[in-house]
Amino acid sequence: MTGTSDARPVSRRGLLTGGALAAGGALAGAATVTAARPDTPGVRPAEAAPVAQVGSAVEPFHGPRQAGVATEPQAHAAFVAFTLRSGTDRAALGRMLRLLSDDAARLTQGRPALADTEPELGLLPARLTVTFGFGPGLYRAAGRDDRRPDSVVDLPPFRVDRLQSRWSGGDLLLQICADDPLTVVHAQRVLVKDSRPFATVRWVQQGFRRAAGAEPGRTQRNLFGQLDGTANPKPGVPLDTAVWVPDGPDWLRESTTLVVRRISMNLETWDLLGRADREVAVGRRVGTGAPLTGTGEHDEPDFAALGPDGLTVIPDFSHLTRAHVTDDRLRILRRPYNYDGVPTADGTADSGLVFASYQADIARQFLPIQRRLAERDLLNEWTTPIGSAVFAIPPGCPPGGWIGRQLLG
Amino acid sequence: MTGTSDARPVSRRGLLTGGALAAGGALAGAATVTAARPDTPGVRPAEAAPVAQVGSAVEPFHGPRQAGVATEPQAHAAFVAFTLRSGTDRAALGRMLRLLSDDAARLTQGRPALADTEPELGLLPARLTVTFGFGPGLYRAAGRDDRRPDSVVDLPPFRVDRLQSRWSGGDLLLQICADDPLTVVHAQRVLVKDSRPFATVRWVQQGFRRAAGAEPGRTQRNLFGQLDGTANPKPGVPLDTAVWVPDGPDWLRESTTLVVRRISMNLETWDLLGRADREVAVGRRVGTGAPLTGTGEHDEPDFAALGPDGLTVIPDFSHLTRAHVTDDRLRILRRPYNYDGVPTADGTADSGLVFASYQADIARQFLPIQRRLAERDLLNEWTTPIGSAVFAIPPGCPPGGWIGRQLLG
Repeated sequence: MTGTSDARPVSRRGLLTGGALAAGGALAGAATVTAARPDTPGVRPAEAAPVAQVGSAVEPFHGPRQAGVATEPQAHAAFVAFTLRSGTDRAALGRMLRLLSDDAARLTQGRPALADTEPELGLLPARLTVTFGFGPGLYRAAGRDDRRPDSVVDLPPFRVDRLQSRWSGGDLLLQICADDPLTVVHAQRVLVKDSRPFATVRWVQQGFRRAAGAEPGRTQRNLFGQLDGTANPKPGVPLDTAVWVPDGPDWLRESTTLVVRRISMNLETWDLLGRADREVAVGRRVGTGAPLTGTGEHDEPDFAALGPDGLTVIPDFSHLTRAHVTDDRLRILRRPYNYDGVPTADGTADSGLVFASYQADIARQFLPIQRRLAERDLLNEWTTPIGSAVFAIPPGCPPGGWIGRQLLG
Repeated sequence: MTGTSDARPVSRRGLLTGGALAAGGALAGAATVTAARPDTPGVRPAEAAPVAQVGSAVEPFHGPRQAGVATEPQAHAAFVAFTLRSGTDRAALGRMLRLLSDDAARLTQGRPALADTEPELGLLPARLTVTFGFGPGLYRAAGRDDRRPDSVVDLPPFRVDRLQSRWSGGDLLLQICADDPLTVVHAQRVLVKDSRPFATVRWVQQGFRRAAGAEPGRTQRNLFGQLDGTANPKPGVPLDTAVWVPDGPDWLRESTTLVVRRISMNLETWDLLGRADREVAVGRRVGTGAPLTGTGEHDEPDFAALGPDGLTVIPDFSHLTRAHVTDDRLRILRRPYNYDGVPTADGTADSGLVFASYQADIARQFLPIQRRLAERDLLNEWTTPIGSAVFAIPPGCPPGGWIGRQLLG
């Protein structure tokens, strides 16, 4: 994290007039614009007037770990996956990631990107975070497959999967999150433009949670009306243990992994279920989120408790039973976003979850839970995975550094 | 507004077990669910805990005028247009609008819909408004074409139009706005289900503005980075004069009209423009929104002022010149939302504006401005109308009443 190359600030102009310019015309256009303008062109003092907390709140970009993982989830997200162009080799990847890191660092701090063509849209960070993920293809393209975390490989097929290529895979991921939707869209636009010489857009998944300030400090509900995320590891040691790789070489230390699953939720059939049936399927009360054997959301479930019928109160096939983990080393950090597309003419919803799961090791933590769920979770009756992608989340970077340096530098 | 039929509260159960049940199976399912549950089924006291201002803020539903027009624009919107099923006659329309009005009234006040299958998602109103619009087809279906406001007809074609049927037309519109995206999605789901026996979904356009609290009290920017809405009539007499029909029969009095245009914005070519060129095209400074002859956003433009080259400082082809109106009776109330779809593989954005314009009379107010813009607005180089729809916005209703009673009752 403190290697000498980090101490040398990235020269944006050097990057643009050096290697990257040769790689594509779009960037050349951006460079021309930049040359004609100072850092925040035309942004007059009036534009910097104080704004309310939601707009001006800032999350740090630099640090040993990337932001956007342990960060309290923002209201809006865009998950943008890229396919590297042929010819994007290790050197080109290094230029790409310097560019993206530099602009991400600026935008997250409420400063326009260097070649920002709409600089006024870059002034409200609204807790913007940009989290970089590396898919298996990026390690291959870099000739550094030996530095790929072992568990970052395509997931094995599950019998519940109905995966579509348009929501699956990806060499590079940018998870862009903020409490303001315009901030997310602007950052996405800037970073997609930066990436053009190096990569094409493979898929974009936009998602939302409750607005900032709408329901602070409470576990959120998904579009089934369920509380979602109750079992997340608590901030501090439990979360650190579950999420971050504590040691190893510098391209692994303070890294984590991300599984993105697009899960279609069939509201049509779910809405036909009575409340009691829903609670049995989930293993929790709809209203409070309490396990069926408890009264509070965070009560420990009693899987041995028997009902008057002699059966366990929490059925073996319930989502709670199948997903339950007590060892923090085996937990996953769920950071899901809702999606809602356009309904069909007959009103059938296109709703679901961009399910984002962070864990130190996919094989050790995510896969056992996923296998148990795929095998016998009653919720599978109403949910269908239609997209899947895995990424390493490399360590963060200090000021002047860039994401991926330990791998590519 | 004070007719006797308004004084008789709508009986939801009566509606369901009376006429509407025969009209469709989906609603029958909802009725069954309702019968098994009290008003807010299973919503325990813990669920009603206080939430922050953003979530709990309420806009009134009842009143002589509909909400969602003069209402300070919320952060999120879904414009949902329906096509009436054949056989949806005046009586069926009456049942449909009673149902929709009743559920809209509940949801806007933070109470779940009567047959709400996810009642917990209905508890955060977040300034939810549901605004009803009647397209020309609704008047025909009701056999009440004589009560259609004269200006509510398909717009004449403009040479700049590239209209797509998938974004155009509609017999009924629900404009659903709230400061929370989940609230909008839940309300949309409930109201689409209500409508099923009577209508199919024609199109849905989702849009966003800055988050609540991100930039309070300031004119917002669109995805071109321009301030958008500076010329809106001021609240009070100017707005009332521009928007609301002051007299006439009870189906016109306190009504207004809405034009929804989907305007694609070509960020690719716009981003190639320098800042000065943008300012000439718009007639305003990008940073402050001031006219090119002024220093403040709300300065009156001086169209006669000449520059050192002997030409007018604000060109005749600028958007400001073409759209400028001084008479409040001729102004329009812009209430636009941004949209941003998924970019293409090469990163070309799918961005634009769901341009919503409210005015007392489309022919008197909207059309002259639109003609001048279509004729010679330089901004047309970078914008393309791809959808168009017109609606009457009928008067509001008192508690126990329903939207459209004056037309259909």
